[in-house]
Order: sequence, then structure tokens, then C-alpha cells
Amino acid sequence: MNLKESLLNIIADRDRQQLSIILEDSYPIDIAAALSEFEDDELTQFTALLTAKEIASIIEESDEELQQKLLGLLDSSKIVTAFSYMSSDDIADILGILDISQRKELLKRMRISDSKDIQMLLGYGPETAGGIMTTQYIALKNTLNMKDALQEIRRIGPRTEIIETIFVVDQHTELVGKADLRDILIASEDTKLEEIMDENVLSVHPETDQEEVSLIVSKYDLKVLPVVNRKNAILGIITIDDVIDVIVEEHTEDLLMLSGVSKDEKVGNSISMSVQRRLPWLFINLMTAFLASFTVSLFEDVIVQVVALAAAMPIVAGMGGNAGSQTLSVVIRSIALGEISIKKDWKFVINEVALGLINGLATGFITGLILFIKYDNIYLGIIILVAMIGNLIIAGFFGFLIPLILSKMNLDPAISSSIFLTTTTDVGGFFIFLGLAKLFLPLLL
Amino acid sequence: MNLKESLLNIIADRDRQQLSIILEDSYPIDIAAALSEFEDDELTQFTALLTAKEIASIIEESDEELQQKLLGLLDSSKIVTAFSYMSSDDIADILGILDISQRKELLKRMRISDSKDIQMLLGYGPETAGGIMTTQYIALKNTLNMKDALQEIRRIGPRTEIIETIFVVDQHTELVGKADLRDILIASEDTKLEEIMDENVLSVHPETDQEEVSLIVSKYDLKVLPVVNRKNAILGIITIDDVIDVIVEEHTEDLLMLSGVSKDEKVGNSISMSVQRRLPWLFINLMTAFLASFTVSLFEDVIVQVVALAAAMPIVAGMGGNAGSQTLSVVIRSIALGEISIKKDWKFVINEVALGLINGLATGFITGLILFIKYDNIYLGIIILVAMIGNLIIAGFFGFLIPLILSKMNLDPAISSSIFLTTTTDVGGFFIFLGLAKLFLPLLL
Repeated sequence: MNLKESLLNIIADRDRQQLSIILEDSYPIDIAAALSEFEDDELTQFTALLTAKEIASIIEESDEELQQKLLGLLDSSKIVTAFSYMSSDDIADILGILDISQRKELLKRMRISDSKDIQMLLGYGPETAGGIMTTQYIALKNTLNMKDALQEIRRIGPRTEIIETIFVVDQHTELVGKADLRDILIASEDTKLEEIMDENVLSVHPETDQEEVSLIVSKYDLKVLPVVNRKNAILGIITIDDVIDVIVEEHTEDLLMLSGVSKDEKVGNSISMSVQRRLPWLFINLMTAFLASFTVSLFEDVIVQVVALAAAMPIVAGMGGNAGSQTLSVVIRSIALGEISIKKDWKFVINEVALGLINGLATGFITGLILFIKYDNIYLGIIILVAMIGNLIIAGFFGFLIPLILSKMNLDPAISSSIFLTTTTDVGGFFIFLGLAKLFLPLLL
Repeated sequence: MNLKESLLNIIADRDRQQLSIILEDSYPIDIAAALSEFEDDELTQFTALLTAKEIASIIEESDEELQQKLLGLLDSSKIVTAFSYMSSDDIADILGILDISQRKELLKRMRISDSKDIQMLLGYGPETAGGIMTTQYIALKNTLNMKDALQEIRRIGPRTEIIETIFVVDQHTELVGKADLRDILIASEDTKLEEIMDENVLSVHPETDQEEVSLIVSKYDLKVLPVVNRKNAILGIITIDDVIDVIVEEHTEDLLMLSGVSKDEKVGNSISMSVQRRLPWLFINLMTAFLASFTVSLFEDVIVQVVALAAAMPIVAGMGGNAGSQTLSVVIRSIALGEISIKKDWKFVINEVALGLINGLATGFITGLILFIKYDNIYLGIIILVAMIGNLIIAGFFGFLIPLILSKMNLDPAISSSIFLTTTTDVGGFFIFLGLAKLFLPLLL
């Protein structure tokens, strides 16, 4: 019997005892997955059996669709009680997907101090440090001694996301350091926090982009990063598990956008939604394709005379595209990891051009040789060799510079780089190859 | 004055006091970055000023090149002292890049218990759970009371990577639960660990692939995951910060391999290395291009008679390629996130085929219309419309199934999917379009 069936049996029998056993043995995310296949009335009956704390743990692990469903079915007082077991960033995320009237209703019913925190979080963009931070952290005064500090940690700890790192503030609530719980546990009782704290604390502002946050956290191997305002007062913390979500999200975006797919695309999306998301990109590509086609049509007179050109030209354009996307993905990756910038690294374009020359020579030589043998014309072979060298150089040059320039203009290089690049290598490839053929037409006849 | 210059001044003046100030104010990773531009003799002079603990923190944050350099310059006894401040997974990684004689020499000089841990770690593949785990964790007996437990945590804590989660073992050293330090801090002194522990502990075996580890950690939002042997005895732990590195690595691999670039490719690599890494992929692509070219050459007689076909045919092939890579990247992404499998989700291929039909109809209609206007031949327009619908259906069908089949065969779908797909959409596109043209040639003349 799978989890869904077990839960349905529990609803039928209203068997709270069996439910407790299952909740103990399963992970909330697996329960949530099973619930997402439930009908509304089954959900209502099921949640009626749960405590607010159990509901909280399931809501936290549900996807947006199930969250919306659950919050529509539960009454406000039960939701607010469940919220008291959840971290503020999760609550803010959930409120963010509700309609305004329900959101206001819930905020009104929450404890004032909590609702103030949540409203602050709701004010930040979802992809900023403020949007992903939580307000459940421990910040203690620098003059506190170990005994009192430990007392506070015992008191606040159960409601915080992290207890290994304690933030230290001065009398103006300014962030002045961080202390490791290990040191607090072993220091003598009357040691003060400021004696054992580490004054080196990296922090970010709430409007910092989440991608920058993830770069800082992974570069400095941090488990937690505080978010401070202009006066250096601590507003919240970002924990490493939230950063993992950001990294996965940003990488997905990069990978999908390189192929012109929206980051929300998933296998199993409705067809009409997928059409809406993918068709615009195909239309943009169609314009590119017409540009390439137009380039070819300029040389129709040549093709009629040497029809071998029609068969050979896709090779030149295609290889340029392949070489270009090799360069492109290396550069986009380096940009995402914060490793390069156009100012510092533009000179590496020479490497890519040299690579294009060498790879063009190697692949062009083979192609030329095969065409020479097939059509028994050495000049056709030479022309395609030169065209491939030229197009792979173009590919290296633009594959390197396009994403860097886009990123410098604060545009996401993953979105539009490939479209510019394909245009360049297609049009460039056809133009060089067919242009050379036209120039040396007598030799080809 | 930048960090590198400050450090060079310190070497010149042998100014240990100034060095202490700088070390206090900087992050080891920034120091390491500065050191990577040092000459060997500067490095030797600099490390002579450092304590073993300071050396340890810098080595941990260095890239492989600097690590090798530093370990070549330092004498074995200082290295072994530095190792005593480092976590076992980092030591194992470092020993892994040394030559065997130096590795043996260092292992011989280490404490026997430490060297046994390290040798165990060295025995696991670098991309497995065993390869990324550390042996510095806290595991306590289930019958221990809070007072004694806290005593042990105080004693062992400073040398462990994580103290929020304490693992609980029974008398046979079998993993039976985990306890939260928060609960230990607030429970009464004579409570036993088994009373407050959570018996639900996910664990992996040392040979588990690191990609699976990262999926488990991010799905269940874990901060730490224990690694156990067949008898369920704990061997080590994997912490979330190591998982971040894995995720970044795996994503980079996927993104780069989709374009046929090795995962180690970086901007600024030597040209000869890049040629070696990229050229093989281009040769494979060249074979594909020849297949496409061969398909075209089958229809040279038709093209000579209707040269417009030469200009139009890149549109059909190109749009198929674009639509196919949209499907491909969505599927590869879903595979990487462990969201789909061929067994469960093969039926979604119908969605992709339907998408191909709709998108082919939309883009094909526009293309057909333009060609009709340009060449004043309605049949040319109809033929390209049909060809584009056909090719986009092919793209959806194969873009969906190729990665799933490769993954089912335990091949990395990111590596070879795109090459199979391009072959299909190129050959398919040219064949349908030119084949239809040949069939209805009289209508086109």
C-alpha cells in the first residue's frame, strides 16, 4: 500500500493513531506529494485530523498549487496558528501567492510583531536578499556573558533557523561580530561575547540580488549570511539551504534560457502554456533564419551553376554554429560564476580567435578533401577550407564578446546570446562560402 | 595598496605584527587568490612567517595549482601539523593530487587514527558520497544523558564541521537516530539521548553517486547527511556546503556538455588544451553535417530546377533544431532534478508532438506566406508549411525521447543528446522539404 492509499484509509477510518505513526515515519515532503493528488473534500477531512504544527510542516514542503489549495480550505485561525511554527521567509512566500484580501485577513490575525516582520519581507523583491532572508535568528548584545548568552540561546534557539552562529550587536543594535556556539559552550561563564566574537562578518543589503548572495555564500563557504540595513543593523539572515534553492533556480534559468525556454517550463505543463512560452522564441529564430535564407538567395545564380554549393553550404554554417556555442557556453558559465568581466578579460578573445583558426583548419581540411574527392574540383575544396576557417574565427570572436557585452549592459547573457550568435555564424558562413564561390566561379565550372 | 602588495611588503620587512592584522581582517580565500600570483621564493618566505593553523586555512581555500605548489615548498612536519587543523575530506582531496611518494610520506607522519580515516576516504571515488564526506562529526551513545552529552559536545565540537545535529548510535555503533542541539540544551540533565532523538534519519552508502546525494539533500532540505556502511554504522557525514560545490559542478557539467565542451573548460585556458578538448566534438559534428549535406546532394537535380529551394531549406532545418533544443533542455533539466523517468513519463511525448504540430503550423504558415509572396508560387508555400510541421514534430518527438533513453542506458544525456537531435532535425528537415519538392516538382516549375 502506498502513502496516498494509507492516508485515504486514515481519512475513511478517522484513525488519528495510525496517522501519528505515519507522520512519525515519513517526511513532510513525501506527505505533501501524496496530498497533491487528493480531492478538495479529502484534503478538508485530512487536515481536520492534523494539529496546526503538523499542517505547518506539510505546507512548508508543498508546491505552490497545493499551498493555495490548502490555504483556501483551512480557516484563518488555524492558518495563523500554523504560521507560528513556520519561518518568516516561508510565511512571506506563501502570503505572496495569496490574493490580497486573504493576505490582509491573515496579517490582521497574526501577532503584531510577527506581522511587522512579514510585511517587511513582503516589501522586498522575491529575487533579492531581502526576499529570501528569514527573520528568525539569534542576535545578542556584545556585553552579555556566556552564562546569560547560553540562557538566551536556550530560550530563542528553538524558534531560529540556525544556532551554530550567534550574531553580536552593540548598544545601537549595530552588527559588530559573530560568535560560534562551540566557543560559547567552552568559554568560562563570565567571558563576554565581545571577547570571543569574530569581528569579520560579511553581510549584504536587502536589495542585493540573490545571484550575488549565492556567489558570496559559495565563495566564502558560509553557512549563514546576515542582511543589514544602511545603519548596519541586522534585518535578517540567509541560510545556506535557501542559497541551494537559489543556485538550482539560477542554473535552471541559464540552461533553459540558452535554448529559449522559460525557466518555469516543466515536462507535463499544459500544451497551451508551453506554446505561449516557446513560440515567441521560435518567431525570433524565424527572423534569423530568414536573414540566413536571404543571404543564400543573393547567390542563387551561382548555385544554379554549381549545385554542389547547395549541398556543402549547411556544413559551413552548421560548424560555425557548433564552434560558437562551445565558446558561448564557456563564457556564460564563467560570467555566472563571477569569474570574468569584459574590462579585465577582453584580451582572451585572441585565444578564441586562435582556437577558431586551428579548429577551422582541422575541420575545413577534412571537409575540403572530401569535397575535392567527391566533385573532383580542388578549388571547391580550397574555398570551403577558407570559408570554414573564416566562419570559425567569426564564431570564436562573437561567441566570446556577445555574452560579455550583454552582461555589461545588465542583460542576461543566457537569454539572447545564442540568437545573435546563430545569426552571425549562419549569415557569415553562407556569405563567405557563397561569396568566395561567386568570386572564383570560373574555377568551379 | 592591494592585498598582494601588502603581503609582499610584509615579506620584505618580515613584519609578523602587520601580518597578524591583515590575516585578522581578510578571508583566507582572498589571501589564497593573492598568493597564487607569487613566485616560489616569495611563497617560501611568506609561509615561513605563518603558523601551521594559518597555513591550514589558506591551503583549504587554495585552488589545486597553489595547493600543489605550497605542499611542494613546505616541509612534511609542517604540513602534517597544518593537516591537524583541517577536515578529513579536505586532507584526502589534497593528498589525492600529490604524487604517491609524497602522499605516503605524509600519511606515515600523521597520527595513526587520522591516517586511517584519510586512507578510508582516499579509497572512495571522488564523485561518490564517500569521496565528499568528512569524518569529523559527533556521534554519541543513545543511553548518554544530557549532561554527559553536552560534556562530549564541548570536547569534540571544536573539531567537527557541524554541531547542530548530533548523531545517536546504539551499543553496536549502529546509527539509530539524530538529536538537535537545541533540544539537548533545553532538556533536563538526566534525560537520555534516546528520549529526545528523532529516529527518522536518512542516510546514504559511501558508493552513492554525489548527484544523488545532492538531490536528497536539496529535496529534504537537510543540513547534514550521514554516510553509513552495510551494517548501518556511521562512517562520515556530508555537509550542505560540500553539496553546494557538487551542485555547481554538476550544473556546469550539464550546461557545458550540452554544447560539447569539457566541464574543465574555462576562459583563459591554454589554446592547445582547448583545441584538444573541443576539436573531437567538432569532428563528431562534422560527421552529422556531412550526413545532412549528403541528404541535400540527393536532391541536386531538383535544386538546379528550383533554386529557391536552396535558399529556403536552411529555414526548415534550423527551425527544427531550435524547437528540438527547447524540448531537449527542458527534459535534460527535469532528468537532472530527478523529476522524470521514461517509464513513468513517456506519455508526455504526446504533448511535445502536439507542441511541434502547433508551433510548426504557426511558424510554417508565416514562412509559407513569405515564400509564396516572394516566388509567386503557392505550392512552394504549402510544401514548406508541411515540411516545417513535419520537422517540428520530429524535433519534439526525438528531443523528448533521446535524453530519456540515454539516461535509461546510464549515459549522461547532456553529452550526446544534442548531436543525435541535430542529426535528426537536419536530415529530417532537408529530406521532407526536398523530398516533397521532388514529388511535386511539376507544380513548382
